[in-house]
Amino acid sequence: MPETMKAIIKPSSGPGLEMAQVPIPSPAPDEVLVKVRAASICGTDLHIFNWDPWAAGRLKPPLIVGHEVCGEVVGRGANVTSPEVGEFVSLESHVICNTCSYCRTGQGHLCENSRLIGVDRDGGFAEYIAIAAQNAWPNPHDLPLEIAVLQENFGNAVHTAFAADLRAKKVLITGCGPVGLMTLAVARAIGARAVYATDISRYRLDFAEKMGADLALHAKDDPVVERIMDATDNEGVDVLLEMSGAPSAIDQGFRVLKPGGEAMLLGVAPGPFEFDWSQHLVFKAAKVHGISGRRLWQTWYQARGLIRSGAVDLSPMVTHHFRFEEFEQAFQQMASGESGKVMLTP
Amino acid sequence: MPETMKAIIKPSSGPGLEMAQVPIPSPAPDEVLVKVRAASICGTDLHIFNWDPWAAGRLKPPLIVGHEVCGEVVGRGANVTSPEVGEFVSLESHVICNTCSYCRTGQGHLCENSRLIGVDRDGGFAEYIAIAAQNAWPNPHDLPLEIAVLQENFGNAVHTAFAADLRAKKVLITGCGPVGLMTLAVARAIGARAVYATDISRYRLDFAEKMGADLALHAKDDPVVERIMDATDNEGVDVLLEMSGAPSAIDQGFRVLKPGGEAMLLGVAPGPFEFDWSQHLVFKAAKVHGISGRRLWQTWYQARGLIRSGAVDLSPMVTHHFRFEEFEQAFQQMASGESGKVMLTP
Amino acid sequence: MPETMKAIIKPSSGPGLEMAQVPIPSPAPDEVLVKVRAASICGTDLHIFNWDPWAAGRLKPPLIVGHEVCGEVVGRGANVTSPEVGEFVSLESHVICNTCSYCRTGQGHLCENSRLIGVDRDGGFAEYIAIAAQNAWPNPHDLPLEIAVLQENFGNAVHTAFAADLRAKKVLITGCGPVGLMTLAVARAIGARAVYATDISRYRLDFAEKMGADLALHAKDDPVVERIMDATDNEGVDVLLEMSGAPSAIDQGFRVLKPGGEAMLLGVAPGPFEFDWSQHLVFKAAKVHGISGRRLWQTWYQARGLIRSGAVDLSPMVTHHFRFEEFEQAFQQMASGESGKVMLTP
Amino acid sequence: MPETMKAIIKPSSGPGLEMAQVPIPSPAPDEVLVKVRAASICGTDLHIFNWDPWAAGRLKPPLIVGHEVCGEVVGRGANVTSPEVGEFVSLESHVICNTCSYCRTGQGHLCENSRLIGVDRDGGFAEYIAIAAQNAWPNPHDLPLEIAVLQENFGNAVHTAFAADLRAKKVLITGCGPVGLMTLAVARAIGARAVYATDISRYRLDFAEKMGADLALHAKDDPVVERIMDATDNEGVDVLLEMSGAPSAIDQGFRVLKPGGEAMLLGVAPGPFEFDWSQHLVFKAAKVHGISGRRLWQTWYQARGLIRSGAVDLSPMVTHHFRFEEFEQAFQQMASGESGKVMLTP
Repeated sequence: MPETMKAIIKPSSGPGLEMAQVPIPSPAPDEVLVKVRAASICGTDLHIFNWDPWAAGRLKPPLIVGHEVCGEVVGRGANVTSPEVGEFVSLESHVICNTCSYCRTGQGHLCENSRLIGVDRDGGFAEYIAIAAQNAWPNPHDLPLEIAVLQENFGNAVHTAFAADLRAKKVLITGCGPVGLMTLAVARAIGARAVYATDISRYRLDFAEKMGADLALHAKDDPVVERIMDATDNEGVDVLLEMSGAPSAIDQGFRVLKPGGEAMLLGVAPGPFEFDWSQHLVFKAAKVHGISGRRLWQTWYQARGLIRSGAVDLSPMVTHHFRFEEFEQAFQQMASGESGKVMLTP
Repeated sequence: MPETMKAIIKPSSGPGLEMAQVPIPSPAPDEVLVKVRAASICGTDLHIFNWDPWAAGRLKPPLIVGHEVCGEVVGRGANVTSPEVGEFVSLESHVICNTCSYCRTGQGHLCENSRLIGVDRDGGFAEYIAIAAQNAWPNPHDLPLEIAVLQENFGNAVHTAFAADLRAKKVLITGCGPVGLMTLAVARAIGARAVYATDISRYRLDFAEKMGADLALHAKDDPVVERIMDATDNEGVDVLLEMSGAPSAIDQGFRVLKPGGEAMLLGVAPGPFEFDWSQHLVFKAAKVHGISGRRLWQTWYQARGLIRSGAVDLSPMVTHHFRFEEFEQAFQQMASGESGKVMLTP
Repeated sequence: MPETMKAIIKPSSGPGLEMAQVPIPSPAPDEVLVKVRAASICGTDLHIFNWDPWAAGRLKPPLIVGHEVCGEVVGRGANVTSPEVGEFVSLESHVICNTCSYCRTGQGHLCENSRLIGVDRDGGFAEYIAIAAQNAWPNPHDLPLEIAVLQENFGNAVHTAFAADLRAKKVLITGCGPVGLMTLAVARAIGARAVYATDISRYRLDFAEKMGADLALHAKDDPVVERIMDATDNEGVDVLLEMSGAPSAIDQGFRVLKPGGEAMLLGVAPGPFEFDWSQHLVFKAAKVHGISGRRLWQTWYQARGLIRSGAVDLSPMVTHHFRFEEFEQAFQQMASGESGKVMLTP
Repeated sequence: MPETMKAIIKPSSGPGLEMAQVPIPSPAPDEVLVKVRAASICGTDLHIFNWDPWAAGRLKPPLIVGHEVCGEVVGRGANVTSPEVGEFVSLESHVICNTCSYCRTGQGHLCENSRLIGVDRDGGFAEYIAIAAQNAWPNPHDLPLEIAVLQENFGNAVHTAFAADLRAKKVLITGCGPVGLMTLAVARAIGARAVYATDISRYRLDFAEKMGADLALHAKDDPVVERIMDATDNEGVDVLLEMSGAPSAIDQGFRVLKPGGEAMLLGVAPGPFEFDWSQHLVFKAAKVHGISGRRLWQTWYQARGLIRSGAVDLSPMVTHHFRFEEFEQAFQQMASGESGKVMLTP
């Protein structure tokens, strides 16, 4: 085994990333060493690339970035009994403590000591990564790389869609980035009556139609509220799945939400904004749930079930492939908005 | 308008039914008069035909039988504002009081004054039926008769399947009569990972495979417990949907139910039987819900959603058609176990 | 029986109310006539008195005001079978249609044709009121007037507190008007571990302590966030019951809400305001429910249970009594913030 | 530190227990060593004493018995960071694996590798016990021994009562052994409207009244069904908490359960028995949950909340105190049915 590996790192505070040769990590007693086979780029990675205020406030460079990763277990710490060396695994990106009150009550996604790989500690845009054994989720050996690499991000979609009751319901998805699109596929798979989608990118609206949207509307150019009220016989939607974080999309979403409706919120707004609290929440008796990460580990079991049964087909989701060395192009493609998921291989 | 109509009636206590000419009913102020376009035969109707102890204890002949009915609104009582004359409707078979504590708390399916048409009062195997306006559920005019007539019975399937969380779960359906088969279709439509089915009729097991069962096992000839434990990697099923009422099937179902699993019980056993309470319920921490009728009226909204979105295709369900005059043959067909639903037309 | 009665009315658009002699209403077929024994003043009534923009936009004078009412059934329409003449009843203030999709699915509190007495039609600050029989909730004959008159408003408290799971939880109530105070009593009765309260009135904070608050903090003068984090070992509260509608209180409430916590929102803000969506809802994975009215009729059954078992003691709540003729003083007292509930008698 | 300690052990297959001098255990890396301050006797311990078929089939003597234990942390394995040496702890009796699918989805009480102390491995009727650190639940130093020792068993009561919604509900508890009595106290604390109790011991019925039962009925001598239907205005109870495992009590309980009611089942029946499935479960649309152990670790947080807030007062529960050396008398007292909890001290 070599002693160093290539990795995409944030070398120091400021925009940009670079390829570097760094030491291969050793697994701690409860960790496995994973040889990375593929990774994919998340919106969060763009924030890190651009070094926006959030990134500047949270990251402590130098740091290997990347948190959507799959690979092969090639080493194990002394306490690890599972998974086996040789297993093909996808990684949960949040390393949790198992001892805080959240972890002890089935709410690991809210762990107060949670550390996100590629953000709070070294990540997986590298040839190897050492990570807690419990974060390495075994896949069938023949699962395509393009599906295996998506499971972390797919988990956000599953968590969001499963937090509401979509069965026989009319659903609006605001924001058709990759998570929004995967959420759309989940909504269809679990019996939504109709799924409407909005975005401000024509590319993504076309993609939404391909993934099964009944209606894909441009959030600025189409009269969204009118079109959705029409499509729903003036009743509005039963469920809003908010994946954009855009205040205007949030307002549109709540305008068409039925009284008593449910709204699941995954999209992150850049800061506080003005919101019509009384009309949209109180009088409407809305049920609103913020969605954070994946439920550990229910979401992984649910995601596995949807993929293995064939209920959800994620094969259209990875639209672009790059080598680690081409990461600049990969990030550009992702930033253009003209892509599904962008995959990187070592 | 004529003054009398043909109807299939239980003329007096004892086995059998007969065709008779009876007065056309007048709608009360809150009722509509429905010209029947189609009806279908339920297992309950067989009990009535055969005059079993249940039927003998409950029915007060003479009585028009039949409770699965669709038709056209041709008259309305003074207080009725909806549905309109001319609308094509399916009928909810339970006429409820709207005033008891169950009705007042969204539990109309448990109404303490509930009256079932064709059992507690005149039913719908007739040219006309008068029924509370709220029991007449409007359909699109182009909904096929074979679908419209099924909605009452389909509602049992929807109620059963929606009472559990089937998303990405492994499910066992014990009993593949028409309701079991429709439940299977619903389970698939709302994201079950796998659906296994058992019955003692080869015809019905073939039907179950056609409706999408991953595994259709003969409850007596196949080693059901072993086969299902194998199919589930020795984990068992997450959910049991019990549609048979057979003590042996119930025992098999609970043997393969996972700890913490859910069991929805629609099947009616003929009497008390021996059950392994501690193993099957207590130690297993099972969550068991008895299912009665349809939730009024959520189930109807849910059923509508599944049908209109195309998520559930009921078109294979009606396998035999008869005229009212041929009711003896129709009941024979139903009794043979070699049918899906059997439809009657005036 | 006389033909006219005294009533407190909004004679025409503009501030103020007046006493008038008006015709005694006749009950429609589904209505009862209730001889009012007591009424109480709601915050909504102050808005109507003051003729604020909300009132100006919604009321169509002339109109009898008042919606918190109890009295005796003295007449019944032709279709009414319950309650009996002579029964002592409290009134649900929302007259609902029973036919819209909300009413038909156990969500009568969201009825799309709901009409609020004293706002959308004549109310109960009068000697008599005619109202749908289902809105007249029978009380024991010996229930004190001061309790009977509170049940509508108490229902808001019960609905709010029951919408969350307060058992063994730490709870913050923001806003100690009468509903907030009654919610506090309910929270204690159903097993909250600790109840903290905030307001900007010293009178109300003292009242909150009398009703069982573990900590009653001045929302402006006390360092609320620090005090509550201290009191909760820096964990924050499990549940926020927001009864104030004040943006600053809402912000304080969400600052101390634990990740994964629940927030029930009854307080109405005067308009849109800036809110930290991502921090307070998304990252925190908050579960937020808008609360509207009372669940019809579950809330009434629940309120009855709490009162009859003695779990909640409402006897301190009515602090002031006035005759209809003294309504100006009564409204002044209510407006001062130095009162619990203010009761009016004919 | 000495090398041996006294312990109450099952020396070999067969009835009875004996005091023995055995080695003091050493904590493994994830374990703490606890110096036992008090223990209490569970019904399970009686089965072990008597060596009934269940005990004979499960225990592998020699074994230290006892699983209700509190004490002081006096040593820690290498990996333990919490609790601290010197802390006063109560012990969760089930040692779980943290890695099976149940543990990984917040269902540790269903862990497939769960080992019960005093049954599957050495227990706590001894001067010392080594146990996984996560099983040692810190108490305030001034918590009375009589409360601290009860927490494991109290957790069964909390789990049972919290599994249903008891707020403003009428509740029947069948079986007034110690867990039933503590469940009664919890039901009162979380807002039950009325609590009825049945047992076949006058001592326990008196105890139930002392703990707040509205009605305490002898299951054989009193006409239970009639009395409870009377007490509930012929409506029946909303919730059944079944703590007896007696087929006749179970039948009584379901006879008086309202349609749509909830039944929580903790009591273990000695074997299969005849049950009226259709009447009691299906037609009644009952919601039945088997209760197993405590939810790990939610139940412990909930129990802590109820005790610290004073909502539940467990001080009457321990009725008898013995030294380890007097264990024969202690077991006799427990077997007599004339006790609350029986406590043992080293």
